[in-house]
Amino acid sequence: MELFYASEISGNLCRLDAEESGHCVRVLRHRAGDLIDVIDGEGTLYRCRLTDDNPKGAEAQVLESQAHWNAHPYRLTIGCCPTKNNDRFEWFVEKATEVGIDCIVPLIGERSERKVYKTDRAVRIALSATKQSLKARIPRMEEPLSVKEFLREPREGLKLIAYCFEGERPRTSIKEALQKMPGQAGNDVTVLIGPEGDFSPEEAQLALDSGYVPIHLGASRLRTETAAVTAALAVYLHFME
Amino acid sequence: MELFYASEISGNLCRLDAEESGHCVRVLRHRAGDLIDVIDGEGTLYRCRLTDDNPKGAEAQVLESQAHWNAHPYRLTIGCCPTKNNDRFEWFVEKATEVGIDCIVPLIGERSERKVYKTDRAVRIALSATKQSLKARIPRMEEPLSVKEFLREPREGLKLIAYCFEGERPRTSIKEALQKMPGQAGNDVTVLIGPEGDFSPEEAQLALDSGYVPIHLGASRLRTETAAVTAALAVYLHFME
Repeated sequence: MELFYASEISGNLCRLDAEESGHCVRVLRHRAGDLIDVIDGEGTLYRCRLTDDNPKGAEAQVLESQAHWNAHPYRLTIGCCPTKNNDRFEWFVEKATEVGIDCIVPLIGERSERKVYKTDRAVRIALSATKQSLKARIPRMEEPLSVKEFLREPREGLKLIAYCFEGERPRTSIKEALQKMPGQAGNDVTVLIGPEGDFSPEEAQLALDSGYVPIHLGASRLRTETAAVTAALAVYLHFME
Repeated sequence: MELFYASEISGNLCRLDAEESGHCVRVLRHRAGDLIDVIDGEGTLYRCRLTDDNPKGAEAQVLESQAHWNAHPYRLTIGCCPTKNNDRFEWFVEKATEVGIDCIVPLIGERSERKVYKTDRAVRIALSATKQSLKARIPRMEEPLSVKEFLREPREGLKLIAYCFEGERPRTSIKEALQKMPGQAGNDVTVLIGPEGDFSPEEAQLALDSGYVPIHLGASRLRTETAAVTAALAVYLHFME
């Protein structure tokens, strides 16, 4: 199954942008009359018939649609400090998208070596991973925020921070925190993953004051991006039936 | 904490090879008299005093040792078909090593596009990930085996195969299979992850005949290397305290 992405779907008319049109018509050689599957990136799958196989701007007619297609049963936000090596953070974006995540926030911590992060590549990676893993909803990639700005935003649900307290390991594992998740939290989970140098004590204290539960990710010392993927998979496995 | 690897440790004499010696003496500028931490790759950590800071062949005196240092509470073997793109398989090797794995077997399936795999790069990645994640035991990287050869080997413990049965999803999730793990299985887990084109029906049947439990990895469609890391993390999280 091959998915195409269209941001322009109105009524039963679906327009593919130049890149998707080229992929659909030039690469996969679809022609007018072919059935194609299109996602809107918001969670809906559209079964369409290609009506115009223009490789620069293809159009299709919507035959049927399915909301919440292949949706995961939770809403996960991970705030993670981008790694020095961009590939590692982008690898987290790809893997978390395949597994199932709703919002990714690049965080700039007081101890972050990387103080700026451009999201454009990660946005493209999230789109292609969404299509590749047969999902209809593209995770929202937010613009970078400082840890303290992020913590000032009100958030619903279970809020977790993976923080070492200068080497002193929190008593609760992410697994235990998810198992003890209070009913009123619904299925909203937010996890914060710090930079290579960890959060600053001030950032950690502000998180605790903001209702974040300090957690550990087990006995292994994980790289930042591995910790972020471990958090995404802990949530995925917690809600797995 | 910085770990060095030495294959030559006899009595209280520890010899670093040329590469580790250069890293220790040239890069980190350790000098005779410095205390260094050395792993033997078999699970033991050695506290040593550098006695010869020769950058081509450093030597150290063992002061104390700790067996099973930072060992994980399970024995995990993952047999996984290498991906077309080597980086993806090597990324699995790095991440599974960080998380905790004991043996990695590159499997060649009947439907594998990659029929040969050279393990030398993966061996180096496993060593550096072992040191980076502060473990003393380097996962064993076996030479490639055909799926059928692998299945003919006797294995202890829980044996799982992630197989789609031509799209029909097994009823048991990896999480459920681990929770139902029989006591006599001990902590031995083996998981098989197929190629992009999945196992062949013959391979899958042979696995079932060999006592492998078919499992799914949840609702998301995961790439081969993501499936392998998901399996490693499912085991890690299952045994997490």
